[in-house]
Amino acid sequence: MDDDLIKKIRSVPDFPKKGIIFRDITTLLKDGKALRQVVDMFYDRYKGMKVDKLVSVEARGFILGAALAYKLGAGFVPIRKPGKLPAATVRQEYALEYGTDSIEVHKDSIPSGDRVLIHDDLLATGGTTRAACKLVERLGGKIIGLSFLIELLFLHGRDQLPGYEIFSILKYESE
Amino acid sequence: MDDDLIKKIRSVPDFPKKGIIFRDITTLLKDGKALRQVVDMFYDRYKGMKVDKLVSVEARGFILGAALAYKLGAGFVPIRKPGKLPAATVRQEYALEYGTDSIEVHKDSIPSGDRVLIHDDLLATGGTTRAACKLVERLGGKIIGLSFLIELLFLHGRDQLPGYEIFSILKYESE
Repeated sequence: MDDDLIKKIRSVPDFPKKGIIFRDITTLLKDGKALRQVVDMFYDRYKGMKVDKLVSVEARGFILGAALAYKLGAGFVPIRKPGKLPAATVRQEYALEYGTDSIEVHKDSIPSGDRVLIHDDLLATGGTTRAACKLVERLGGKIIGLSFLIELLFLHGRDQLPGYEIFSILKYESE
Repeated sequence: MDDDLIKKIRSVPDFPKKGIIFRDITTLLKDGKALRQVVDMFYDRYKGMKVDKLVSVEARGFILGAALAYKLGAGFVPIRKPGKLPAATVRQEYALEYGTDSIEVHKDSIPSGDRVLIHDDLLATGGTTRAACKLVERLGGKIIGLSFLIELLFLHGRDQLPGYEIFSILKYESE
């Protein structure tokens, strides 16, 4: 793993609540060289894989996801919270620690058979990403990979995503 | 103006409320060629202008903003709704049709004197962009341009942004 890159991540204790250490990627993103480096690392991983659509979850996922879509020459498809997308959508519910949440994607955003790369900034428990995978597959998209800037290994998100190829650049072994 | 590009925008009547025609950019973004074309148009406009930071407002603004930051080699700085950014922020209030809203940026995101390009997907009345300009200038950033994919000319957003260099790719003369 790249030690210089991980030093660009700011760790904020007790955000958004007590006991959580928030890994803040904005300190990496504001560094033009570091931003370019991580997008190029993703690009090197996926450049030969004929990606038709890059799908990202709002809002932080849009940042590196859209830059990578541009570099790959892929289309960009946003997954959003309910009520944000103006045309016909499909919706997927997923479990939170307490209660449930939902995400949506436009029905006509991914033609059946399209090769899809999903990107998010962070792989934690994997719940949001699993819901994103279900949305893409309900539209007939073929998921060729899941990509993350950060993976929190101690939350075992990979176990919730069996059968998918997963790539993350920065890994945290513990909280 | 590019007729082929404007055809990629989907017009959704009565969203988010009756009487509004929403200009939906997702139908352009999902087209890899169109996405590349608009980012390259922005790049051609700003490539010689030594942009240190590309600043965008959540969430749709992140998409083309981050791709453009990558292409320019600039750092990317997100402006967000209150409570989303984990470290110390400055906050700016602005007027809505009814009431007010606020946006925030990290205090340490823009060193004084940095050359800043602001991007958002849409210029409407200009209120959000004006608040974004104030945030950047409170940090000491020098705004070298404001860029938008779409400009709604009939809302006269430019009048709220005197003295700034404004560039938009797709313009609507009327609702």
